[in-house]
Amino acid sequence: MGNDVNRQVRLAARPQGTPGPEVWEHTSEPVPEPGAGRLVVRVSHLSLDPAMRGWMNEGKSYAPPVGLGEVMRALGLGRVVASRHPEFSVGDTVTGVVGIQEYLESDGSGLQKVQPADGVPPERYLALLGMTGMTAYFGLFDVGALAEGETVVVSGAAGAVGSVVGQLARIRGARVIGIAGGPEKCSWLTGELGFDAAIDYRTENVSQRLKELAPDGVDVYFDNVGGDILEAVLGRLAMHARIVICGAISRYNAEGVPAGPRNYMNLLVFRARMEGFLVGDYAERWGEAAAELAGWLAEGRIHSREDVVDGTVDDFPEVLLRLFRGENTGKLVLRLGETRTGS
Amino acid sequence: MGNDVNRQVRLAARPQGTPGPEVWEHTSEPVPEPGAGRLVVRVSHLSLDPAMRGWMNEGKSYAPPVGLGEVMRALGLGRVVASRHPEFSVGDTVTGVVGIQEYLESDGSGLQKVQPADGVPPERYLALLGMTGMTAYFGLFDVGALAEGETVVVSGAAGAVGSVVGQLARIRGARVIGIAGGPEKCSWLTGELGFDAAIDYRTENVSQRLKELAPDGVDVYFDNVGGDILEAVLGRLAMHARIVICGAISRYNAEGVPAGPRNYMNLLVFRARMEGFLVGDYAERWGEAAAELAGWLAEGRIHSREDVVDGTVDDFPEVLLRLFRGENTGKLVLRLGETRTGS
Repeated sequence: MGNDVNRQVRLAARPQGTPGPEVWEHTSEPVPEPGAGRLVVRVSHLSLDPAMRGWMNEGKSYAPPVGLGEVMRALGLGRVVASRHPEFSVGDTVTGVVGIQEYLESDGSGLQKVQPADGVPPERYLALLGMTGMTAYFGLFDVGALAEGETVVVSGAAGAVGSVVGQLARIRGARVIGIAGGPEKCSWLTGELGFDAAIDYRTENVSQRLKELAPDGVDVYFDNVGGDILEAVLGRLAMHARIVICGAISRYNAEGVPAGPRNYMNLLVFRARMEGFLVGDYAERWGEAAAELAGWLAEGRIHSREDVVDGTVDDFPEVLLRLFRGENTGKLVLRLGETRTGS
Repeated sequence: MGNDVNRQVRLAARPQGTPGPEVWEHTSEPVPEPGAGRLVVRVSHLSLDPAMRGWMNEGKSYAPPVGLGEVMRALGLGRVVASRHPEFSVGDTVTGVVGIQEYLESDGSGLQKVQPADGVPPERYLALLGMTGMTAYFGLFDVGALAEGETVVVSGAAGAVGSVVGQLARIRGARVIGIAGGPEKCSWLTGELGFDAAIDYRTENVSQRLKELAPDGVDVYFDNVGGDILEAVLGRLAMHARIVICGAISRYNAEGVPAGPRNYMNLLVFRARMEGFLVGDYAERWGEAAAELAGWLAEGRIHSREDVVDGTVDDFPEVLLRLFRGENTGKLVLRLGETRTGS
């Protein structure tokens, strides 16, 4: 590692709207050596998540903003390459908050060891077997309180979380309608993933299609997008419906603060609730969820798809934009190759 | 009753914005005689409620719209003056949906007998001891799941439901901040009703005042008004806050569909929920609530204030507007005198 450098991407400015190249600074520093009681991780996979956009804003949210000049926050996966930490050994695979960089020096807090199973690609521990799967699991079953025979709608349905939500709902015995952009995604949902129906929001009238597909109303709506689609589903609630607020990707790059759902008073008409959650609050129950998800995966009852882009940390700014353009299908992961530009 | 007439107010047109005199038709017909198994009620008190505005709109809601040409729907109280119904006798006092008219002919469905207690004015059975009290009780305790020591904010705090909500919260051991319009109302809240604080939304910056009065955030928000005040409270939530959607009077007379809360994503930041309810869904538990409310009233732990306007059914259109102007303090009731115009 001696001659090597640690390439990093830092937040240089707070974006207005979609984050362009001007908000990033590409830096490098020597590969760190672990301090006493600390370890160094060589990052191999970076998780690209809509939540990143929120972390780039100033102001209080569920997580503190990334400071200007700081390495951009990111979940990821890697291998321990040096350790003076009693609980981590060289060669361990770990996940957690690693940042957009090639090497992380850490005291181990927030890092979990994973034991990759045979035939399971490492990126799956950032998808179905990681935070993404947990988010779908607790959001749908706990916040959404889904019951057998109910009708579920999920937006961002071909995305990382959405594609898991729909499959979990099927396993629970619910009817599932996915909302996604484009015919390929919709075919994937109703084909391989077994959704009952899909709506292509780019070419179809979502309200009209929901009326046809959910004539008795929507019992659980798992919302990843907000905006017009949230309003469309609010217009088609069943009595005592639950709206699970997981994200609002349609709003994240809007300039100013976009309007909220005009028809939120349907919550009263249908005695419904709208509730936000964060998967981190369920940390004590992750083991339970992970075991169940891994079991369904092994039985072939659930599929995990990762949209893996090979590149370097310097590709991060451009790859991130795929999320906001809706170009990914399944979990978007940047896999860091051994050959890197600038090193 | 032979020579008498039954004056009625009917909905003649669907209002755009605030309902002016042009949407009403004043009619009269002979005082009805009860059919077999039916009864006739002489209406003495009419309950004026924000929900009436919703009933005037076309389109599906929790209750069907009042049809054009129909007697306007209203809750009220009266006395049975003729009966061929086995369960109602002449002289019984009843409450229920009576309509804006002097006499109701009915099969008894939706009417409840009440036994006025000594010293309790009849209009109180439309307020604390009626639907108003039930709405506050189940909204705060059941939907809001209020716990001792929490901080409660209620809007429309000097109105019928709001003034009860705040007092119930105090009985439960919570801190209560009321939001109302004007210094008299605010003084009443913090004086006679024992609220911990009041915010005059007409002259004060609600967000700023909430920041001062609820530095640790709002645990339960009981919303009667919607609009800017809902946004202000969404900006000051405590973790796991509950927003109880009871009404949105600021929106009812807006033309078009006003924007929803721009900062609804704070539900995610604070893992909070926003939930609508209707008191009618709690019908099986009204007895429980009524007994408890009557007990607190008798012990002097809770006050009921009714804003009684004496007049005739023909005064209804004008008196109703007091609600939307925020001119009432406590429950707005139109008490029908024996002397009536036009008869």
